[in-house]
Amino acid sequence: MAEVNVETSQGTPGVAAGGETVVMKFGGTSVAGPEDLKRAAARIVAERERGNKVVAVLSARGKTTDELLTMAGEISDRPSPREMDMLLSTGERISCALCAMAIWDLGHQAISLTGSQAGIVTDSSHTKARIVDVRAGRIEQALDRGDIVLVAGFQGVSTDSKDVTTLGRGGSDTTAVALAAALGASVCEIYTDVAGVFTADPRLVPAARKLVQISFEEMLEMSASGAGVLQLRSVEYARNHGVRIHCRSSFEEGTGTLVVAEEETMENPFVTAVTHSSDEARVTLAGVRNEPGMAGRIFTALADANVNVDVIIQNEPVSTSHGADLSFTVGRNDLATAVEAIEAVDVSAAEEILTDDKIGKVSIVGAGMRSHPGVAAKVFKVLGDEGINIEMISTSPIKISCVIAADRVPDAVRALHDSFDLGDDAIHYEDSTGEHKARAGSR
Amino acid sequence: MAEVNVETSQGTPGVAAGGETVVMKFGGTSVAGPEDLKRAAARIVAERERGNKVVAVLSARGKTTDELLTMAGEISDRPSPREMDMLLSTGERISCALCAMAIWDLGHQAISLTGSQAGIVTDSSHTKARIVDVRAGRIEQALDRGDIVLVAGFQGVSTDSKDVTTLGRGGSDTTAVALAAALGASVCEIYTDVAGVFTADPRLVPAARKLVQISFEEMLEMSASGAGVLQLRSVEYARNHGVRIHCRSSFEEGTGTLVVAEEETMENPFVTAVTHSSDEARVTLAGVRNEPGMAGRIFTALADANVNVDVIIQNEPVSTSHGADLSFTVGRNDLATAVEAIEAVDVSAAEEILTDDKIGKVSIVGAGMRSHPGVAAKVFKVLGDEGINIEMISTSPIKISCVIAADRVPDAVRALHDSFDLGDDAIHYEDSTGEHKARAGSR
Repeated sequence: MAEVNVETSQGTPGVAAGGETVVMKFGGTSVAGPEDLKRAAARIVAERERGNKVVAVLSARGKTTDELLTMAGEISDRPSPREMDMLLSTGERISCALCAMAIWDLGHQAISLTGSQAGIVTDSSHTKARIVDVRAGRIEQALDRGDIVLVAGFQGVSTDSKDVTTLGRGGSDTTAVALAAALGASVCEIYTDVAGVFTADPRLVPAARKLVQISFEEMLEMSASGAGVLQLRSVEYARNHGVRIHCRSSFEEGTGTLVVAEEETMENPFVTAVTHSSDEARVTLAGVRNEPGMAGRIFTALADANVNVDVIIQNEPVSTSHGADLSFTVGRNDLATAVEAIEAVDVSAAEEILTDDKIGKVSIVGAGMRSHPGVAAKVFKVLGDEGINIEMISTSPIKISCVIAADRVPDAVRALHDSFDLGDDAIHYEDSTGEHKARAGSR
Repeated sequence: MAEVNVETSQGTPGVAAGGETVVMKFGGTSVAGPEDLKRAAARIVAERERGNKVVAVLSARGKTTDELLTMAGEISDRPSPREMDMLLSTGERISCALCAMAIWDLGHQAISLTGSQAGIVTDSSHTKARIVDVRAGRIEQALDRGDIVLVAGFQGVSTDSKDVTTLGRGGSDTTAVALAAALGASVCEIYTDVAGVFTADPRLVPAARKLVQISFEEMLEMSASGAGVLQLRSVEYARNHGVRIHCRSSFEEGTGTLVVAEEETMENPFVTAVTHSSDEARVTLAGVRNEPGMAGRIFTALADANVNVDVIIQNEPVSTSHGADLSFTVGRNDLATAVEAIEAVDVSAAEEILTDDKIGKVSIVGAGMRSHPGVAAKVFKVLGDEGINIEMISTSPIKISCVIAADRVPDAVRALHDSFDLGDDAIHYEDSTGEHKARAGSR
């Protein structure tokens, strides 16, 4: 398909021209203090005054969710998941009610809705529910009255038991994308404390460049490999429903990064960005008994323990007397749980369980990689030239990840960013505190 | 009607014997910290283990409501009432979710419900909604499953717009009484930081006695004249629906005070208690123009400004040339609003508006007063002997109130308590902090 310009009918890319429906999402730092909330309210009102119908999805303020988690921790070591959802869902409601007050003060009608009132219907998996339906009738009525609608992110109501559910950390992104899809919004704007999606984490690579646009597939790989800017599930939802995301800063003006379908992207550089994570751990099961179903049992146990496994490699056994060596990486916080889960399966599954908790990962992502052979070879050479040992490799058609020692991650990111010429005359920017506000490859 | 014993089928007054439905309400201080919440959970579980079906209504924790009010104040001077309700209703939900977690840890099934989920249906008067219906189906299902049900107090859902509403300060008492009525509960237990209803505020009168029981009518007069222990509306609701209230301490064992129908009370002392308030103000309109409807207009304006007027007196004009003098008392915090409201009606309504913001009130309450003439005379004599000037008087069949200078209130309370022999060998008690925990006539 020919490349298509991403502009909306009359203007700037990712900016609704008027007479459209816009969904705006503000993260926790964007509504943290009273001044932040008022700034968000002003942005929302500006969008309304351009003649658009506006739905804003808000996260809980700053540290609210952590405070609620602390309260729960003071009461119980293993709090009921249903009650955790009842507890945590209050944070976003507080943000929305306060923001509605601020909007009224700016002379516009506003109404805040809980996830349930907004028609976000989920399954019953408390603390990690999935959206199964969006019944946006009440939102549409309010928009038709001319109201600005504020929706509490991260939460819904379960179909069967009518209980409050939550969507997991970062779930407000998914709320916003789901509403944008249901309302046929022209764009879903994700306001955050970074200016967009960068070619690498600017804290590591000062020359990192803000991407003008990126495809859903690339964004999925980036979110999965360490870029913290958008929740993975929200990107999946956006791709499946064709919702264009505009990822931008709530602290400064200017456009951010558009996440769009691949056929809409204007260029396909063979490498788009370098991402990284520094908080992984590796588990190696040495000499795994060579019998059918063993790997299945091990990874089922890990899944049951809610451990996300990232890269997996297995060496074929060299002889029938010695089992295979199986290695995989997990988030560092999950390491203890992972080892426990494996030991519980079958103590004799492996001859030995080895762990390393100082593991990192560096990845390069780019849709153009498909048609450019030799990218992997170049990655390995660059890392080799830096004297960085590659411990594990994992690839997809548009991504190459290398597991390396955690302390070499910054060098690896800089070297790859440099070698693939991803930077430009570094776009630096600072917020009012003088602190750099940008990230890409960070968790 | 003959006096009837208030005991339930098998035992102690105000304590359900088992196989009954019990509604327990815990105030903000009773769920403030993690230890308080666990204490409340233990009490709830104990009631369940006696074989009763248990519904617990919780207030917001300690200072939560004040914190939320502060947040709203940081955003707006005149926050939208609908959004205030959305905001404030989160406090009770937090308490309930946490308490449910604590109950699970004690080995019992618990489920927390919002006011809406609990079926508390109200009118649409945001921030001061009235309960119009209780649809307790979901609570009954949960009770039948054996769950302990925790209900967020102070809130409901409006019939027409399905918005979150709140019932006004102290509204959790009303939630509890309304649920007790709807569920046919044998008793509505109100747990608070005082041990019951006292013959006077023990902070003023160390010899004050905890009342074993009191009639709805007396409790209404006491709540209206300064006793802070129960919200006036909850007592009205209880009287209208015949719900027996057991007002008791959540910090110590032992029964508190039963509030029951008058025909159930075992004794009718002619004076039951002395109540007081020290934070009133008086407004005098001197020379009010003598025309029909003038008083109506003035008090309509005050009602519209949400000012609660307490005692009203008017002197007939001595001549047609000079208007009447009209005096009334209001809460001290409402004084400025009241004066503003009157001036807005008609600047020439009165020749002069005089105010005094150092006004207090002392009242004696007692159902037996009806059949004992001479109580008023004795009250006036006691105050006169103390050299206390009575500025206004207001009576009902079971109450005599005297408006006096605020700084004479303690003397007046002590003198009346003494003269009517209300005390006994003072029941003193201290909580773990060594602080006296009891009040009656306080606001």
